[in-house]
Amino acid sequence: MSGHIDRARAARLMQVAGLDALVLAAPESFRWATGAPAGVAANWRRLGAALAVVPADPARPVGVVVTDLFAGAAEAAGCAPLHRHAIWPETGDLRPFLPFAGDAASLVARATADRPPGFARPATFDRATALAALRALLTDQGLSNARLGVELSAVPAADLSALEAAVTPARMVDASLMVERLRAHKSPAEIALLREAGLITEAALLSLLPEIRQGATRDALGQRFLELVRRVAQQRGTPSVTAWEYVGFGASPWSSPGGIAPGDVVKVDVGAVVGGYSADLARTFTCGAPAPQARQVHAALRQAFEIGRAMFRPGAALRDIHAACLGAMRDAGFPSYARGHFGHGLGASIWSEEFPYTAADSDVVLEAGMVMAFELPWYLDGLGGFIVEDVLLVTEQGAETLAGGGLPHALVELP
Amino acid sequence: MSGHIDRARAARLMQVAGLDALVLAAPESFRWATGAPAGVAANWRRLGAALAVVPADPARPVGVVVTDLFAGAAEAAGCAPLHRHAIWPETGDLRPFLPFAGDAASLVARATADRPPGFARPATFDRATALAALRALLTDQGLSNARLGVELSAVPAADLSALEAAVTPARMVDASLMVERLRAHKSPAEIALLREAGLITEAALLSLLPEIRQGATRDALGQRFLELVRRVAQQRGTPSVTAWEYVGFGASPWSSPGGIAPGDVVKVDVGAVVGGYSADLARTFTCGAPAPQARQVHAALRQAFEIGRAMFRPGAALRDIHAACLGAMRDAGFPSYARGHFGHGLGASIWSEEFPYTAADSDVVLEAGMVMAFELPWYLDGLGGFIVEDVLLVTEQGAETLAGGGLPHALVELP
Repeated sequence: MSGHIDRARAARLMQVAGLDALVLAAPESFRWATGAPAGVAANWRRLGAALAVVPADPARPVGVVVTDLFAGAAEAAGCAPLHRHAIWPETGDLRPFLPFAGDAASLVARATADRPPGFARPATFDRATALAALRALLTDQGLSNARLGVELSAVPAADLSALEAAVTPARMVDASLMVERLRAHKSPAEIALLREAGLITEAALLSLLPEIRQGATRDALGQRFLELVRRVAQQRGTPSVTAWEYVGFGASPWSSPGGIAPGDVVKVDVGAVVGGYSADLARTFTCGAPAPQARQVHAALRQAFEIGRAMFRPGAALRDIHAACLGAMRDAGFPSYARGHFGHGLGASIWSEEFPYTAADSDVVLEAGMVMAFELPWYLDGLGGFIVEDVLLVTEQGAETLAGGGLPHALVELP
Repeated sequence: MSGHIDRARAARLMQVAGLDALVLAAPESFRWATGAPAGVAANWRRLGAALAVVPADPARPVGVVVTDLFAGAAEAAGCAPLHRHAIWPETGDLRPFLPFAGDAASLVARATADRPPGFARPATFDRATALAALRALLTDQGLSNARLGVELSAVPAADLSALEAAVTPARMVDASLMVERLRAHKSPAEIALLREAGLITEAALLSLLPEIRQGATRDALGQRFLELVRRVAQQRGTPSVTAWEYVGFGASPWSSPGGIAPGDVVKVDVGAVVGGYSADLARTFTCGAPAPQARQVHAALRQAFEIGRAMFRPGAALRDIHAACLGAMRDAGFPSYARGHFGHGLGASIWSEEFPYTAADSDVVLEAGMVMAFELPWYLDGLGGFIVEDVLLVTEQGAETLAGGGLPHALVELP
């Protein structure tokens, strides 16, 4: 299997919860567990285009329901058993018959000779067929009467009763949080992708600095960051790189009308995304000298950042880091400061923030192999948007900075 | 209200279905109905960050549950009543107190003086608070005991029982398909966005043609298309433009290893996205002379395209267009050809293909104001990926081509 799931850890969590298997329904979870793409039919808010069933026994491979167009990739990734259902694109494999002397009609007729008569494709994909395939898969896996942990956060409520009918007499419980806990521990390959994303993000942000100057517009800076990411990725020969940016400045940091003016606080919160895995790095700059209150706000955030940063090591409770950062902000003279989290997991999710959160109600204790964005933000209309944020990899010894190590945490005054 | 929903049409559909209101749960549906952004908290697979309640009575505004950070935008869009709940980012509005002579601590203390004591923010957002806000909203709207059509495709199954408890004694039925039917009719503002997306897509594709030549790689062509979209958008002064591309060539059109070789069939399926609204335009080219079978396959697709294209007018049933295209392919000597749909609605969805589909099981009849991608694709390993696709706006008289009008439908031989 070519996925990233830690099967031994999954087995332990399933045993504690009394589960026989996990049923993954989110496209990103399918890819994480199998290494294979979920495919285009998983792009809608509909169940069944790609389902992965992970048995508790780590020795048994991950079984899948997948669409015909993506069955080859799932097979190559080692998924078994594999049940497929047809989707709308018409395809054919002419390769076994080439070169061919006759016309296209004869060639296609030969290549499709083994198609069942009357073969038709659904408008998109057929949920009933997909769920029948899931039922057959569970039977193959000896899970017909099992206790299934299902990723119900990714099952549309509109499809829930059809899913229940398809798996009965197996029983379902929600395992969304268990999947998030498993995904929080990154494989070496995932760490390599996040490391590369962090490196590209930091290099692109460093290259952006000379362009953060008076008159620059929000859209131009944002666009430029995306260009710089592409350039750095190309130089490094890194494929499949995208990026996102939240750049803002001035008294209205959410809208940032016009261009940067002298004294403006400039917030640059950005990420390169490598193979789906996102970095999340942020710094705050000023255009010339800022208001004294801006310096005071940033100094408090930076101090709280340093206090929290020093706590990142295996065994640290995220709730304790949250409390320390909040306490530092209160000690700095801001008793009303009330940020909900000081960062989040990083991975290949539907956006950049994923479980776990460095928050007051978290029960998560850091372990080596977790990759976290750690951040101290504050958005103050009238003064500006402020943030200090790095990407951290928790190691056996403490934490390694994957993005931000080459950029000062201070409020940097740009000319 | 600044949304795109046709309230009179919504009232008619609700009356037929015996509904008192629609509850919209997808971020894109929230934006479509209100004109306001759903906000960052809607980025997870979780219910409650942004909910819109559309009463059957068109005279009453759309009520919303929205997060505090995005409440201002929803208010400005005319949403009422509006119930808000707090999310994780710490914000403050210092503007009423500026300029300020004292330090940041005094300034923030003044700006947050009316905060309830002990105010804290949740790690992300609190579902219970959000659903209590929904309950209060329904009470405000006189819908406490109503029959609600809920967009259950966008409600995670993990949140369904909490939602049911929050709306009881109101009853819920799935209205996902009704929302899709309503969204299929574009407002003049939506048509303007789709027209601009089509225009930019076509201009960028025309500019790409000289670069589709021997040796060009898949990634370089794809990247170049995205650059050309940005350039055209910049020249036109059009903001908020992104793009996507499916470029492929050669005997393995899905992976397209190496560079274009003489005789290769090149498929360019692309879209610019303006303000969230996506175009979807495709043509097929060859590098020099292709195999005779490639010409025959494309000729059949093109003829089927012309037959289907001539049927696009108000009153035409999508299932009849599907049957005509399939029939044309069979008449051309390909009785096994089995494409599920020949195109789809275009709008601001989570990907480029949305309801309705030009498919055998469709019950949709075209009406003026619908915008459709119309396409005849075929993916044949060994020979190449083939497609002819335009963007069509159904008008009172027939259909206007929004993208593709300036590009021949023929298989164009590039030097």
